[in-house]
Amino acid sequence: MDIYGFWRSQATFRVRIALNLKRVAYREIPIDLDKGEQYSPEFLAINPQGALPALIEDAASPLTQSSALLEYIEERYPTPPLLPKNLRERARVRSLAAVAISDTHPLITPRVKGYLSKTAGFDADQWRAWQTNWFSAGLKTLEARLAHDPATGTFCQGDTPGIADICLYALYEGAGTFKIKVDAIPAVDRIVAHCAKLPAFADAHPTRQADYPG
Amino acid sequence: MDIYGFWRSQATFRVRIALNLKRVAYREIPIDLDKGEQYSPEFLAINPQGALPALIEDAASPLTQSSALLEYIEERYPTPPLLPKNLRERARVRSLAAVAISDTHPLITPRVKGYLSKTAGFDADQWRAWQTNWFSAGLKTLEARLAHDPATGTFCQGDTPGIADICLYALYEGAGTFKIKVDAIPAVDRIVAHCAKLPAFADAHPTRQADYPG
Repeated sequence: MDIYGFWRSQATFRVRIALNLKRVAYREIPIDLDKGEQYSPEFLAINPQGALPALIEDAASPLTQSSALLEYIEERYPTPPLLPKNLRERARVRSLAAVAISDTHPLITPRVKGYLSKTAGFDADQWRAWQTNWFSAGLKTLEARLAHDPATGTFCQGDTPGIADICLYALYEGAGTFKIKVDAIPAVDRIVAHCAKLPAFADAHPTRQADYPG
Repeated sequence: MDIYGFWRSQATFRVRIALNLKRVAYREIPIDLDKGEQYSPEFLAINPQGALPALIEDAASPLTQSSALLEYIEERYPTPPLLPKNLRERARVRSLAAVAISDTHPLITPRVKGYLSKTAGFDADQWRAWQTNWFSAGLKTLEARLAHDPATGTFCQGDTPGIADICLYALYEGAGTFKIKVDAIPAVDRIVAHCAKLPAFADAHPTRQADYPG
């Protein structure tokens, strides 16, 4: 299995963790977002959207979008499960994941930065304030949902890591990549610390990837 | 089943269509986003995130996030299916859905409008340009993915409506709510026209809701 990805891409980060938890071997082919390689004709032939990651199996057509890939990986490799069996618990896990995947991450992608720079004249400080605002909003929302819910355990849902933890960890460490630290989120801090102890999470970290510039 | 929603909420719109396709009866309780009712203490007790929709069954805790709710509805009421059986086809449907749910809709929500108005001084024209840019990007991405893919049929995946059609239709009609029309998307136009013929889609339309201001 090949993944087109980038060390800093939060969406690729999620897929790396899921594959590691499932013990599925993969090779990552770097697409440098800073150089705009996602818009090269070669990559647009793989994903016309110019977005990461794209997952390739054999000669089959590429699969895209990390939310779809996490579900695909879960269905294709059921062990260990990354979603609970109970339907309402599954909904809770997916809802927590959506706070990162849908409510937060799309706001801080390169294409949004491009629009705000070119069209609204955002400078580096304004972009940083924007990034910080949304990372903070996402992580504080997760804190509000996790802190006092009896369904929260060592991890977001009980005591085994799953899709919500994958998304939470990638969001938190994604903020860290930009040196953004959000205060007063103790439940989030605690779950992230538990994730970081697991090689599946730690090995997927941006700073451990071959294309990490150091 | 009760849903807290709003006539214009694209996320609520998706859930309405899914419940209609499954023939599940529900009652919608309106939360007026224009009046900021999503931030009332009463609604924050239901969803601390202050976002729509929230789904309530009996005395159980609320379920949130439309992506999680679509999966929950699919799992709880399997007939008619809104996802294919084949795993790669499921991934394709979820990936198409994510273009609307993750890549597009989060960018045009009230909280983003609030930030851009207050912090970046966006006026009505700048907000409209922003909205138009992202609706257009989302719908054109879906066009690029749907137009020449043999997996596309009458609907996004083959000839039965599913989760991708729900998200596509809500995105397209969501743009229409703001009188935004995107040109040169014939495959999207065609699928939307097929959806509009089905009462499950048509009855879920913003303009047909009790709280629609007319």
